[in-house]
Amino acid sequence: MAGSTYGIVFKITTWGESHGKALGVAIDGCPAGLELEEADIQRYLDRRKPGASSIATPRKEADEVEILSGVFEGRTTGTPISLMVRNTSQISRDYSEIASCYRPGHADYTFEEKYGFRDYRGGGRSSGRETAGRVAAGAVACKVLEKLGVRICAYTRSIGPVEVDREKFDREAILKTQTAMPDREADAAAIEYLQGLRRDTDSAGGCMECLVEGLPAGIGDPVFEKLDANLARAIMSIGAVKAVEFGDGHEVAKHKGSENNDSFRMENGKVRKTSNHAGGILGGISDGSNILIRAYVKPTPSIFRPQQTVNQSGENIEIKIKGRHDPVIVPRAVVVMECMTAITVLDAMMLNMSARMDSLVDFYSTER
Amino acid sequence: MAGSTYGIVFKITTWGESHGKALGVAIDGCPAGLELEEADIQRYLDRRKPGASSIATPRKEADEVEILSGVFEGRTTGTPISLMVRNTSQISRDYSEIASCYRPGHADYTFEEKYGFRDYRGGGRSSGRETAGRVAAGAVACKVLEKLGVRICAYTRSIGPVEVDREKFDREAILKTQTAMPDREADAAAIEYLQGLRRDTDSAGGCMECLVEGLPAGIGDPVFEKLDANLARAIMSIGAVKAVEFGDGHEVAKHKGSENNDSFRMENGKVRKTSNHAGGILGGISDGSNILIRAYVKPTPSIFRPQQTVNQSGENIEIKIKGRHDPVIVPRAVVVMECMTAITVLDAMMLNMSARMDSLVDFYSTER
Amino acid sequence: MAGSTYGIVFKITTWGESHGKALGVAIDGCPAGLELEEADIQRYLDRRKPGASSIATPRKEADEVEILSGVFEGRTTGTPISLMVRNTSQISRDYSEIASCYRPGHADYTFEEKYGFRDYRGGGRSSGRETAGRVAAGAVACKVLEKLGVRICAYTRSIGPVEVDREKFDREAILKTQTAMPDREADAAAIEYLQGLRRDTDSAGGCMECLVEGLPAGIGDPVFEKLDANLARAIMSIGAVKAVEFGDGHEVAKHKGSENNDSFRMENGKVRKTSNHAGGILGGISDGSNILIRAYVKPTPSIFRPQQTVNQSGENIEIKIKGRHDPVIVPRAVVVMECMTAITVLDAMMLNMSARMDSLVDFYSTER
Amino acid sequence: MAGSTYGIVFKITTWGESHGKALGVAIDGCPAGLELEEADIQRYLDRRKPGASSIATPRKEADEVEILSGVFEGRTTGTPISLMVRNTSQISRDYSEIASCYRPGHADYTFEEKYGFRDYRGGGRSSGRETAGRVAAGAVACKVLEKLGVRICAYTRSIGPVEVDREKFDREAILKTQTAMPDREADAAAIEYLQGLRRDTDSAGGCMECLVEGLPAGIGDPVFEKLDANLARAIMSIGAVKAVEFGDGHEVAKHKGSENNDSFRMENGKVRKTSNHAGGILGGISDGSNILIRAYVKPTPSIFRPQQTVNQSGENIEIKIKGRHDPVIVPRAVVVMECMTAITVLDAMMLNMSARMDSLVDFYSTER
Repeated sequence: MAGSTYGIVFKITTWGESHGKALGVAIDGCPAGLELEEADIQRYLDRRKPGASSIATPRKEADEVEILSGVFEGRTTGTPISLMVRNTSQISRDYSEIASCYRPGHADYTFEEKYGFRDYRGGGRSSGRETAGRVAAGAVACKVLEKLGVRICAYTRSIGPVEVDREKFDREAILKTQTAMPDREADAAAIEYLQGLRRDTDSAGGCMECLVEGLPAGIGDPVFEKLDANLARAIMSIGAVKAVEFGDGHEVAKHKGSENNDSFRMENGKVRKTSNHAGGILGGISDGSNILIRAYVKPTPSIFRPQQTVNQSGENIEIKIKGRHDPVIVPRAVVVMECMTAITVLDAMMLNMSARMDSLVDFYSTER
Repeated sequence: MAGSTYGIVFKITTWGESHGKALGVAIDGCPAGLELEEADIQRYLDRRKPGASSIATPRKEADEVEILSGVFEGRTTGTPISLMVRNTSQISRDYSEIASCYRPGHADYTFEEKYGFRDYRGGGRSSGRETAGRVAAGAVACKVLEKLGVRICAYTRSIGPVEVDREKFDREAILKTQTAMPDREADAAAIEYLQGLRRDTDSAGGCMECLVEGLPAGIGDPVFEKLDANLARAIMSIGAVKAVEFGDGHEVAKHKGSENNDSFRMENGKVRKTSNHAGGILGGISDGSNILIRAYVKPTPSIFRPQQTVNQSGENIEIKIKGRHDPVIVPRAVVVMECMTAITVLDAMMLNMSARMDSLVDFYSTER
Repeated sequence: MAGSTYGIVFKITTWGESHGKALGVAIDGCPAGLELEEADIQRYLDRRKPGASSIATPRKEADEVEILSGVFEGRTTGTPISLMVRNTSQISRDYSEIASCYRPGHADYTFEEKYGFRDYRGGGRSSGRETAGRVAAGAVACKVLEKLGVRICAYTRSIGPVEVDREKFDREAILKTQTAMPDREADAAAIEYLQGLRRDTDSAGGCMECLVEGLPAGIGDPVFEKLDANLARAIMSIGAVKAVEFGDGHEVAKHKGSENNDSFRMENGKVRKTSNHAGGILGGISDGSNILIRAYVKPTPSIFRPQQTVNQSGENIEIKIKGRHDPVIVPRAVVVMECMTAITVLDAMMLNMSARMDSLVDFYSTER
Repeated sequence: MAGSTYGIVFKITTWGESHGKALGVAIDGCPAGLELEEADIQRYLDRRKPGASSIATPRKEADEVEILSGVFEGRTTGTPISLMVRNTSQISRDYSEIASCYRPGHADYTFEEKYGFRDYRGGGRSSGRETAGRVAAGAVACKVLEKLGVRICAYTRSIGPVEVDREKFDREAILKTQTAMPDREADAAAIEYLQGLRRDTDSAGGCMECLVEGLPAGIGDPVFEKLDANLARAIMSIGAVKAVEFGDGHEVAKHKGSENNDSFRMENGKVRKTSNHAGGILGGISDGSNILIRAYVKPTPSIFRPQQTVNQSGENIEIKIKGRHDPVIVPRAVVVMECMTAITVLDAMMLNMSARMDSLVDFYSTER
């Protein structure tokens, strides 16, 4: 079945494999009149690009985006925006030896069971490179949201045992540290930890967090289209994410009602909550507080030590993965989380416009 | 926007408020030829019904289901199955005092911000009673899955600090304990804990788990329709769930790759994993192991002690909630988790039928 | 697959069979705050009810609608509006003899081929009674549209050889004539024609037309969601419709460009067309003129003379249909056309709200 | 709203403007294992390419398709197939004078009303070039259908007053005549007619027909997803189509039931109809006969004589369109009709696989 289309009115369709000719996305339903140029998108793509750092894969991908449609005279036209990134660095021989066996922790086996065969080069469609399309689309969503006063910010919260100190939260550091941590000390500690793992041919998991600021109350829909339900799907759809939570998350299971409820109070004539255990969502609808989402990411499955597995002939074998792999997924996944959140929140805001008769009547009684 | 329809080919639309005339669901896309009668559905509805126990609300709802369409001579016809449960016990006066204020931890404020006004009786559509429609539909999905050899089983894993002992897992206990725990000792401890909370006018959170057994490899779709992504949405859409995870869940963040990868081995001529840290899903597609999902549920927000909040006139006030409320949500939510899982898995299985050319060709070349 | 859900934001799901317990619809996504009561809906249902007239089936259905959810204190709440009509007049024995054979012109054979068996009572889900749910939902859509200044009006244009005279168009007559013709003379001629057919155990086809007035320019979306494409689907989905057209319709095939193009002219400071060959839609988007849709309806397939067919045992047989059947479908289908048009137009108007950045920014920068 | 995505399981998303960098389509949900190469698609694209003939625009577009993803080692992988055609011949200056006015019969005015501004070069997204993506996707659908024994064939039925003679139906001629008529005499007459129109700076409408052969009974879904309803939408979404009909089409309005009903008879042990007034669909579901669809196409709106219109400043003006325009749209639209039909029929066939319990159980109990 089709699995590569996401969103209802702000709808994206991504395509492309790790070692195919190109990757891309068609964004359909972006409002007309947004100023948009390649640089707006490139900035986001650069954040998921492997760096030259000691902790990221040395693979070099230019990942230069090209706008193929949907923008005229510098503004979006309301018709599909097609974005493409050519693959320039694929070297198929790197992967040829894994063509016939199933790497532990990867989707080789499941793709083959589903489809009967698979593009084994670099994981094909199940590669992390698949996210290039999401990020390109998310860059556009972020630009729209900015005009609406909504700001999305994701960052690394922990890598292995190293966690950022919330008291020292430094937003500027996110784009500057190799780990995307908002805390330079934690960044240094995490890098040291990862270098040790690399020497030990192992890899680390981690946690990332995303903050949505400026979202008005009333966004999201009851029952199946709850904002948190849709965000959970959006974030869980990022490869390697194994847990998603909001506000106090899994810890609520041990809390009491008297601790967990957020009280309402008037503040400067507005309704405000005195705490935010809920993470900004009540009954699936935004409550005007910040949305706080957390995602837990498994360690990179590609590790450079012998592993037991089977091959297509049904034989037990031992493999040793080669190639270029990050020792931790989180730092490059942070921008993907930011982008999936942006797309989901924007779609919900667009759909919310017709929730009330008075808005509908206003809209169509105004001379434009 | 419409938020009450769920699923692509096995598609359900639920409706109804806590204190309206009735609640129900229309199931569209159920395969024709399934034997179905009210008793198949009633069995599931009874599991979410408030019991006579010391830990559940004494509110009595008969919750008798009526099949209004889609079944002929005892079998489903392929056309929409409409199921309805009349509300019999609504007593609006119980709730009249909350009409003008926003209960902490509830959706009163967010519904009002979104829609301009709200059905304040018992929480209206944001009430837990909304799940009656989901459970009725899930009962049908479970019956279809049974014919396909897939079995779904959800249960309470913890209530407050009391956790079940996995060594003593007793499947039969799930339907017999008041807490839906698969461990009678834990059940007794949890009941004692809850009775203490009740005396203390407080409430508890908890954790529930769901196991999908017998699911073949290959179910789920890459990218946005990953099986775990769709399950995360399905489970997170259940009111009060704040975290969803698969397999080792949030703990993967602290694991190393060498610990987290599941090895493949041949076993009786079949590919099997030697462990299941992944929780049965790789790359968004089932791997033939059991699917393991965990959901963390916040404490019941309705507690019987004074709480600070605001009213519609913008005044800070103190409220004391009355009425009938469970001190913990989990035991009655377990069947909802089971049902949402069933609907999601069945939809994915139905969609998977056209994933390959050979299946498609076989299907249409067979004389039926 | 699910076929009974329609619409994207104003989404309806209908259910029910001709001789089941009830028929109904759940409307999800209706804007909150619309005043709504049963009488608003009943008025539309009464128009599709068989009358006491000489040309309609004498079957008596009360078709009393009940609002089961989604309305509180007389206004819609934004949550699903569930509407139900109990079947009161089903007499299964009338239909028992057709249980094992396929009536020409009906869906008996195709349903059985698809689903393996069928509810043979009165055509089951393929009966014209299926439209009760559409009409109930359409009544709500019409009420919303009215508040937006959009008025929808369908009527009978021809029955067999009898066509209305456009010069004598009398809107009031539509609801008063037995044929739903806006021309009392044509109505009389059509009735006489139908009485002749009835004596001759035959039936007539006809044409119906629908006018959408007051729709602003800009509604509908390019490519696959064109307003005319979606209307064509909506109208063609009404049983017995075999052709749908807009403006000059099938006659454009013989026109020249110089005849068919509508010129634009300024009129009182507004852009207006000097003719309307296009039927109010250019490039799939409304142009501010009236939308004109025409649908051609086949003759009632149930005729009271011997017909050749086969039975489930694969034998050639002759059947003679009994029961209660209108000699022409059009007069009762007119309101269904009106309702399907209303639902489609309203959905397009709701979706149109986010087409432009300036509208989106305005919406969220306004204090509500 | 998003309007460029079509289909449920075989889902396509097209993008691109007449004078942008490129046009393309992402096909998501194509079954894995289909042999596919550029030549399979090029063959279809060449059919909609302007020819060197006297009746088609002399604009030269290479329209060379490139497969960017979804095919590995010559077979589809089940993941999105991205197809792109670079625009090579756009010369923006040809269109600069229409930037500020609304061409009669075109979508200039409606796009501007909807989106606030428009890509005026060659009609932007509302150009006939938009169909390149549909045709590329349809070529893939046709190849899948071929493997299922389903064959789709569209052709020109009439141009202006010139109609093909059904007695002389010559399938081979369709791909060889300039008009795509299956009748060489009619082709010659039509060309003569068009040359006269061209001299007269006018244009012609026409009718096209599409035949679906080999489709088994049981395809399509009741109520809103009827096969004819979905085909009507698919065909009406092709620019310039103003009417769509099935079987006897608009003529049924004048037929009697005794003429219009198709009798069933046994033939070689199979159920067959003795006539096909219905056009192969009963109750929205295929009946095993050929599907016959007819579409009426308006004359090319671009004519080379002065026309009255208005400009963006609200002034009445006279324009004279220049550039390259076919005097009739039908011959190049025929392949688009074929492709939209293919996509719609294939999607319905894929969705039909889960209609019955026995099929579902068979599928999952078979060892693959």
